Amino acid sequence: MTAQLPTSILPQALAASSKIMDATLEQVLPKPHGLHARVHEAMRYATFAGGKRLRPFLVLNSARLFNVDPDRAARVGAAIEVLHTYSLVHDDLPCMDDDDLRRGRPTTHIAFDEMTAVLAGDALLTIAFEILAHPATHDSGEVRAALCLRLAEAAGSNGMIGGQMIDMQAAQSSFGSDEVVLLQRLKTGQLFEFSCEAGAILGQAGSEHRDRLRSYARDMGLVFQITDDLLDVTSTAEKTGKAVGKDKDAGKATLVSLMGVEGARAEAEKLARRAIATLKPYHNAVPELCELPLFLLDRES
Amino acid sequence: MTAQLPTSILPQALAASSKIMDATLEQVLPKPHGLHARVHEAMRYATFAGGKRLRPFLVLNSARLFNVDPDRAARVGAAIEVLHTYSLVHDDLPCMDDDDLRRGRPTTHIAFDEMTAVLAGDALLTIAFEILAHPATHDSGEVRAALCLRLAEAAGSNGMIGGQMIDMQAAQSSFGSDEVVLLQRLKTGQLFEFSCEAGAILGQAGSEHRDRLRSYARDMGLVFQITDDLLDVTSTAEKTGKAVGKDKDAGKATLVSLMGVEGARAEAEKLARRAIATLKPYHNAVPELCELPLFLLDRES
Repeated sequence: MTAQLPTSILPQALAASSKIMDATLEQVLPKPHGLHARVHEAMRYATFAGGKRLRPFLVLNSARLFNVDPDRAARVGAAIEVLHTYSLVHDDLPCMDDDDLRRGRPTTHIAFDEMTAVLAGDALLTIAFEILAHPATHDSGEVRAALCLRLAEAAGSNGMIGGQMIDMQAAQSSFGSDEVVLLQRLKTGQLFEFSCEAGAILGQAGSEHRDRLRSYARDMGLVFQITDDLLDVTSTAEKTGKAVGKDKDAGKATLVSLMGVEGARAEAEKLARRAIATLKPYHNAVPELCELPLFLLDRES
Repeated sequence: MTAQLPTSILPQALAASSKIMDATLEQVLPKPHGLHARVHEAMRYATFAGGKRLRPFLVLNSARLFNVDPDRAARVGAAIEVLHTYSLVHDDLPCMDDDDLRRGRPTTHIAFDEMTAVLAGDALLTIAFEILAHPATHDSGEVRAALCLRLAEAAGSNGMIGGQMIDMQAAQSSFGSDEVVLLQRLKTGQLFEFSCEAGAILGQAGSEHRDRLRSYARDMGLVFQITDDLLDVTSTAEKTGKAVGKDKDAGKATLVSLMGVEGARAEAEKLARRAIATLKPYHNAVPELCELPLFLLDRES
């Protein structure tokens, strides 16, 4: 399948959006100052850690569909990226996944301390809403409030946090694929859905566009997750920059453990094909989004 | 000073607003459901713990000044209360204050576990913005976005979280009263300020009203903090429902340790008098707010 379409525009497009995002994040995050500088330093340490900026990439490209000012889209991308970063900082804590390494660097609670990591995570979550609600993000208060509302729903106890809660119980449970899919749709899928929908909200596009982009994101998010699980089984810490084999060690069910490596890969390919088909009306406008699922299938980290 | 004004309306007014707030919180917090029910249960456990609901009391009363629909004010009160609750849940964690007891009950990480307490705190912080951004809070998107923005600023790394960061370093520092006042203005004062200002934002009142209410809240917040520190020195765990003498044990400077019990009490009385004077134009409309500083001076828990 990967041979049928050229995927060459993706690395360059991702690098370009990453560069835009680093500049925007640099601007919206507080400069370390005052007696509380340490929390600013930890926020920046966690955020500037060489991530792929995949969620902002989705925002920037979905926003292009509706001719949204790129600076505004970048602000929304930054809000989602700092929220995603907070979730990593808290997930890495000793009481959660207890990870010392992420993207090849010490995790925030190792580089600073646990208390600072909790506070920096809290602060990143909080500033996500500050960025969205700020007049610089959109002239319309309705749009800014809609962005805040949808992000809170996607990230809250019935979204990302709910997924993390289920994940933390996964080792003691005998989940089937329904439960694992639900877990992933909440834990990682909701934020992907919001990232794609955000462009349509910014562009004040109709619900048909919002639904289509969310539907695409739902499938694409599962492709991302399955390929992540495949890397956990087949790759090395050197390539992925984090500990591998952790799900198996923890006795957690994944789509890979339930379907096998080949079965999971076939499922991911099916979902990728469906995601691309969903986006057909937009193909000429944003080929980047259409190629992304294939790019994820091929990724090595 | 306390003999000069009757304070009898306060206990009843606080009890009445507490009742309204419990009903509103019951409505806005998710009912436990699904595989992630545990995080909903922990959110509710932390929120329904017999708090005074002082911040919502400020919202409800400041909103009355501008004839705001009480149901809308109660939603904003609920948002601030769940945000305050998250800060307590995270502050109590072993890596922060390591408290086992709050308001006479096991803290959330004791009643559940550390991981659930981190997630429940995250979820309470997130739902605060969901409540504010929801159309039920106000017809105007501008107002909802303004509420989100100001709450994020008050609660973020240059507000409440910044204050907590400074507080966590206080035991190793030799703070004078300037540093202690800054710490308290951030850690507890910012949320009091937003609670009072929120009524004016909801009522779309001019900046003169917002400034006056914030100025009142700044003084009143310090009165609250000084009396809290006085209780820490002079009261018992039985009366306050939490461990006492902790600041001294931790070697932390407070206005009480810097000024002495009598000096700190005199400072609190001076601030209370100034807070009341600031509110003079509103006295007939909201006597509750004017009496609150004196009520705080006299509190035993």
